[in-house]
Amino acid sequence: MTLASPPQTKPLSDEELRKMNAYWRAANYLTVGQIYLLDNPLLKEPLKIEHIKPRLLGHWGTTPGLNFLYVHLNRIIKKDDLNMIYIAGPGHGGPGIVANTYLEGTYSEYYPNVSQDEEGMKRLFKQFSFPSGIGSHCTPEVPGSIHEGGELGYSLSHAYGAAFDNPDLIVACVVGDGEAETGALATSWHSNKFLNPVHDGAVLPILHLNGYKIANPTVLARMSREELQSLFVGYGYKPYYVEGSDPEAMHQLMGATLDTIIREIKDIQEEARNHGFRKRPQWPMIIMKSPKGWTGPEEVDGKKTEDFWRSHQVPFGELASKPEHLKLLEDWMKSYKPEELFDEHGKLKPELAELAPKGQRRMSDNPHANGGILLRDLKMPDFQNYAVDVPESGKVVAEATKVMGNFLRDVLKLNQESRNFRIVGPDETKSNRLDAVFEVTNRTWVADTVPEDENLSVDGRVMEILSENTCQGWLEGYLLTGRHGFFSCYEAFIHIVDSMFNQHAKWLDTSRDIPWRRPIASLNYLLTSHVWRQDHNGFSHQDPGFIDIVVNKKAGVIRVYLPPDANCLLSVTDHCLRSRDYVNVIIAGKQPALQYLGMDAAIKHCTKGIGIWEWASNDQGSEPDVVMACAGDIPTLETLAAVDILRQNFPDLKVRVVNVVDLMVLQPPSEHPHGLSDKDFDSIFTTDKPIIFAFHGYPWLIHRLTYRRTNHNNLHVRGYKEEGTTTTPFDMVVRNDLDRFNLADDVIDRVPKLGYKAAYVKQMLHDKLIEHKHYIAKYGEDMPEIRDWKWPY
Amino acid sequence: MTLASPPQTKPLSDEELRKMNAYWRAANYLTVGQIYLLDNPLLKEPLKIEHIKPRLLGHWGTTPGLNFLYVHLNRIIKKDDLNMIYIAGPGHGGPGIVANTYLEGTYSEYYPNVSQDEEGMKRLFKQFSFPSGIGSHCTPEVPGSIHEGGELGYSLSHAYGAAFDNPDLIVACVVGDGEAETGALATSWHSNKFLNPVHDGAVLPILHLNGYKIANPTVLARMSREELQSLFVGYGYKPYYVEGSDPEAMHQLMGATLDTIIREIKDIQEEARNHGFRKRPQWPMIIMKSPKGWTGPEEVDGKKTEDFWRSHQVPFGELASKPEHLKLLEDWMKSYKPEELFDEHGKLKPELAELAPKGQRRMSDNPHANGGILLRDLKMPDFQNYAVDVPESGKVVAEATKVMGNFLRDVLKLNQESRNFRIVGPDETKSNRLDAVFEVTNRTWVADTVPEDENLSVDGRVMEILSENTCQGWLEGYLLTGRHGFFSCYEAFIHIVDSMFNQHAKWLDTSRDIPWRRPIASLNYLLTSHVWRQDHNGFSHQDPGFIDIVVNKKAGVIRVYLPPDANCLLSVTDHCLRSRDYVNVIIAGKQPALQYLGMDAAIKHCTKGIGIWEWASNDQGSEPDVVMACAGDIPTLETLAAVDILRQNFPDLKVRVVNVVDLMVLQPPSEHPHGLSDKDFDSIFTTDKPIIFAFHGYPWLIHRLTYRRTNHNNLHVRGYKEEGTTTTPFDMVVRNDLDRFNLADDVIDRVPKLGYKAAYVKQMLHDKLIEHKHYIAKYGEDMPEIRDWKWPY
Repeated sequence: MTLASPPQTKPLSDEELRKMNAYWRAANYLTVGQIYLLDNPLLKEPLKIEHIKPRLLGHWGTTPGLNFLYVHLNRIIKKDDLNMIYIAGPGHGGPGIVANTYLEGTYSEYYPNVSQDEEGMKRLFKQFSFPSGIGSHCTPEVPGSIHEGGELGYSLSHAYGAAFDNPDLIVACVVGDGEAETGALATSWHSNKFLNPVHDGAVLPILHLNGYKIANPTVLARMSREELQSLFVGYGYKPYYVEGSDPEAMHQLMGATLDTIIREIKDIQEEARNHGFRKRPQWPMIIMKSPKGWTGPEEVDGKKTEDFWRSHQVPFGELASKPEHLKLLEDWMKSYKPEELFDEHGKLKPELAELAPKGQRRMSDNPHANGGILLRDLKMPDFQNYAVDVPESGKVVAEATKVMGNFLRDVLKLNQESRNFRIVGPDETKSNRLDAVFEVTNRTWVADTVPEDENLSVDGRVMEILSENTCQGWLEGYLLTGRHGFFSCYEAFIHIVDSMFNQHAKWLDTSRDIPWRRPIASLNYLLTSHVWRQDHNGFSHQDPGFIDIVVNKKAGVIRVYLPPDANCLLSVTDHCLRSRDYVNVIIAGKQPALQYLGMDAAIKHCTKGIGIWEWASNDQGSEPDVVMACAGDIPTLETLAAVDILRQNFPDLKVRVVNVVDLMVLQPPSEHPHGLSDKDFDSIFTTDKPIIFAFHGYPWLIHRLTYRRTNHNNLHVRGYKEEGTTTTPFDMVVRNDLDRFNLADDVIDRVPKLGYKAAYVKQMLHDKLIEHKHYIAKYGEDMPEIRDWKWPY
Repeated sequence: MTLASPPQTKPLSDEELRKMNAYWRAANYLTVGQIYLLDNPLLKEPLKIEHIKPRLLGHWGTTPGLNFLYVHLNRIIKKDDLNMIYIAGPGHGGPGIVANTYLEGTYSEYYPNVSQDEEGMKRLFKQFSFPSGIGSHCTPEVPGSIHEGGELGYSLSHAYGAAFDNPDLIVACVVGDGEAETGALATSWHSNKFLNPVHDGAVLPILHLNGYKIANPTVLARMSREELQSLFVGYGYKPYYVEGSDPEAMHQLMGATLDTIIREIKDIQEEARNHGFRKRPQWPMIIMKSPKGWTGPEEVDGKKTEDFWRSHQVPFGELASKPEHLKLLEDWMKSYKPEELFDEHGKLKPELAELAPKGQRRMSDNPHANGGILLRDLKMPDFQNYAVDVPESGKVVAEATKVMGNFLRDVLKLNQESRNFRIVGPDETKSNRLDAVFEVTNRTWVADTVPEDENLSVDGRVMEILSENTCQGWLEGYLLTGRHGFFSCYEAFIHIVDSMFNQHAKWLDTSRDIPWRRPIASLNYLLTSHVWRQDHNGFSHQDPGFIDIVVNKKAGVIRVYLPPDANCLLSVTDHCLRSRDYVNVIIAGKQPALQYLGMDAAIKHCTKGIGIWEWASNDQGSEPDVVMACAGDIPTLETLAAVDILRQNFPDLKVRVVNVVDLMVLQPPSEHPHGLSDKDFDSIFTTDKPIIFAFHGYPWLIHRLTYRRTNHNNLHVRGYKEEGTTTTPFDMVVRNDLDRFNLADDVIDRVPKLGYKAAYVKQMLHDKLIEHKHYIAKYGEDMPEIRDWKWPY
């Protein structure tokens, strides 16, 4: 472990320094302009109140630092012909990033209206945080962005995700010291234990010690230098400090530091690439300490502003009521000397414009930041080759995720050379029975090893860290830069990334309306070890509510699948891996379970997303007495077992069994593109017969999806109602009234024509439940006749 | 900063060592027994398959380490008469903790059936992870637990929460090295920057480097010692290493280390308490490296098991099919020499039993771990004193959260001496306009300061860290140990703690059924800066879906309030702060807004949770033509403005205005204790008139809550439908069809009797929307007539 010594040289010539500082001033000028101005962008006339936006929005505090870094990264990109993208953790610094994309011409190329002239600058200023304009963060509309940064905490895991399998790429990632307090960020520093210098690119983390949050100092800014150094060395990095407020000294220091660091990155990579991986390197990082609101007003109304939290957002307002504020703004903006930066038409002067890299070397035009451009289809094996043989429905047993593992193994194998597919998860690939993948790859592991380790390798393509946040962040970064992936997780704990899912879904939703953003691969979740089979881990591990979060997002970007068996899971997985711009949620069990559909039937069923299972129904050629619907593997099992009970006891009862794979078919087509037409819905569910719906999740979701359907008033849904504990699998369904006996009982209660026998059967069902209760209290496991039930027809 | 040097002494006499090791063996024996045995608890007869549980569940790997620590903590508790609780981050080690509570007698006191004899031991074994028994983690049923540990990541923030304002308490907190990879845990190490050695207790973090997760090494176990040391020094701790596998050496080392550490903790506290706070201390911590599955089988079927991930759960099964496994188990259990530990009746031998502390010094009987025992009511100011004067409805403007801030200020003031109330939040107390609290207190800040800092103090009672996870964890720990608190958060980002909320709600739900667990103060959320006023931050900050997560949990423990104005917010806040065992979610805006109800009316309204606003309705004495319902401040405003439009244009139209404060009243009483009876519901909402419901959140939640109500088919809900961007406040409601014009339009579409004028008014509404759109595109703010609208009647 080497400690960094600060570079002592002054690498910038006076000329270079002067120009770089001017470029930085230009970016700062454009930032302030975006926050404040409606008009008079070049300050050609004295600033008047009518030039000022009526609502002042935006974050100034972080932007001068972001802009400073941008101009320095531009220098080394040009100097060393680097392939680099920029992630701004403090995405609130949006106006700074937009300013830079404008200065280097990309913005006007993507948005010709915002041209590089006075009129364009005026539009640039006006549109910022303005209705029908652009947002205040690094939203999908910003060229070069893969990270909005509106919600904080995910910059570094995004950066690593982007760097994996992109050996040529350097991802510069600015981490705000506010953001650094979040949990997601605090653990993502450990991502360096998963980055292979041979095949992956480099991440250059830049901790921006800006000092303050909204109204508070930051924790990292108020630790001793000794502790700070120790913390990042402990995380495995070699910190270089760039600290100060004098622009000239800071330019030289940053220039020299970046020269050193880029050389170090290259050395690390060359060493590993020429001689093979030997040891996890101590990657360099920068700790940049600069004043918050640097170059902004030192004081406002006598109160410290620069280098204090008062610079966080708009440092001063009330321009209409306080004329001195108008003057303050004018002085501030003029301190950047716009006349030295832009010609009389508002175009950046050529001697400054030439500082920016050209074409796709511009960070704002790097194709990695519009990953859809680089996206190539996965080579896919034929999923039908992995089919479970199902000669008769409901008799064969298989483990769905194990079967899926075979398929994923070959997806990994076929794409091993193209290195564009990874699986992430919190240490559960094996527990979730996907371990066939270890036949062809390993877990990524760049930390220390011991001889007895199994399936660990610096080249592994399965990434496991006990941080759902990091898994999600890595995968998002990987997908956004044009690759494919898959996240397997315990169902209950995917809630840890609810908020990250929200942000990604919003990103996808917004991106769909941006013509130049090309579609990226979908984010695919497999939720397994699900609520119904957490009988052993108990109540804390039982929560099927992630779907409820998912369906809150725009129908255009979300899909939810509940394949009832292995062949359906194969079909759905194949579909999801080929899809674009969605979040696909697949919920499937890992335990041995009955198989219902042969491959052809499964494909047909999954393609429709819903179907009447004729083989399980006895209403052929007539209207049923009751519809028994189910979604999810366990509800399907219990529904079929209930049908068995009913058919044995009421041979004349006409039961229709409906299975739902694609939950979105239940919504009206006006709400979701997969929604069944009312006509089709009615033909499946009838318009007036009772429907008993056994659902995997919280029951009310089915009501929420179907409340506009004709027969909704006859819909009776059973699902998880937060009755859980450590018990047996069957007791779990009993506790939630989702078991075969309760479902049969629900039918009896709702079908009037069952006659004298109804009461007798109800008693029998009740007795069965009591018998089961006694059995498990004694033996601790389910009665064999229940556990081993098979479809008998 | 001092680095710890390992203690060199051997503090344990041979006798003491022998006994402590025996006690540890007893705990390990009982752990294995719980995992495996149904019967024959003392192995008095040869082990047979019928003595073995049919389903083997539980986690062995972490328990010997947890047990080892427990016996050592017992020693120092007795030696120094310490007040200590134990938090087991690896809650999967539940059987170990249960074993210890049983050994020290508490378990039998709380559960007399599980007596300290053979019969009781048999019950202890059988009940573990058994139907109708106990869970596998440190669930609420476990005496001494405030931390279930089923979901990983929250142990350390819980520990700090417990230590705040408990100067006498030491919270020993074992952090698993798997758990340490989670984001929530990784940032919670920084909690030491918020702990005041004068008034708070101490946290003793014990990082258990157990080496492995389910099937993987852990990151922290595979860093160099140099980096590990550096990381924790960087976090601000002084790490002591206790490392090895030889029990004798480990006992001496742990004994000596704890002696040293406790002395250091006392020194730190005495120094600060005698001389005042000077500098954040470098608190000691332990890094304990011991083999996973220590003392368990070294190999199973020829495969390494002890000190490897194969020990993680049940190290071997298949006892029926592999007789050698039965033998292995018997040899393993007998290796603990139960005959030396328990007398022939199964009671722990007295010479060992005396090692445990007595009474409430037992960690399992410490009252802090059953916080309700210690809970005292808050001293509450009369909330009516903070009332906004509302001489006429809908004319006065006030900022609701600002008013609430005055109330909270005085709650803080009145309870300053009892030190039992804290406010947490991610740097948003001021931004959320609660800054009146800084008149009487400060932000807790134990890190470095600079002269210009404001409102920071080591004694502050407002805790801000930019980690919602840490805020939530601190507050949970604080509440669970018998104090009160309040969490204010941006609405969208409370999703970061969805999973923590789930766990806490489940804890409360389970605790309600445990007679000896006394009620604790409710967890109160204020969600502000909400979806409708994130027009400036844009789409990423807009998500009202936390309620959807909340209502998935048991009705008995959750409450959701949407006070429409400041006086209602006061009334609701007072109610929530007095309540017990709930999670209360309050959603209220911080922006200047119209006030509707005087204090008396507000109290009446909030007590019912719902009400017809007569003053806004014109259906007095007759059935209305339409019901306009609203929940949330912005929907209420738009509803009233829509009513104004309708009354102006259709003087004969009878409009009833219904406002909902307590969302739970909408559910049937069978679903939630606050649910209105169908009769009351029908009398408010009618049985057949159109209802236009303007809702704060995603609209389908209202359908989900009301789908069983008579008039549900006539219910039309408007709410947030994921149409967001950076725009003006009014444009936000327009984009989601929740604005006054669209609501009025909805009414016109649904009331048939409006005649010829309907088409004309519809056109006018449409024109208004167009006019507004043009206005904001030009000026960037809302039209004054819309922005400044007041209730004109």
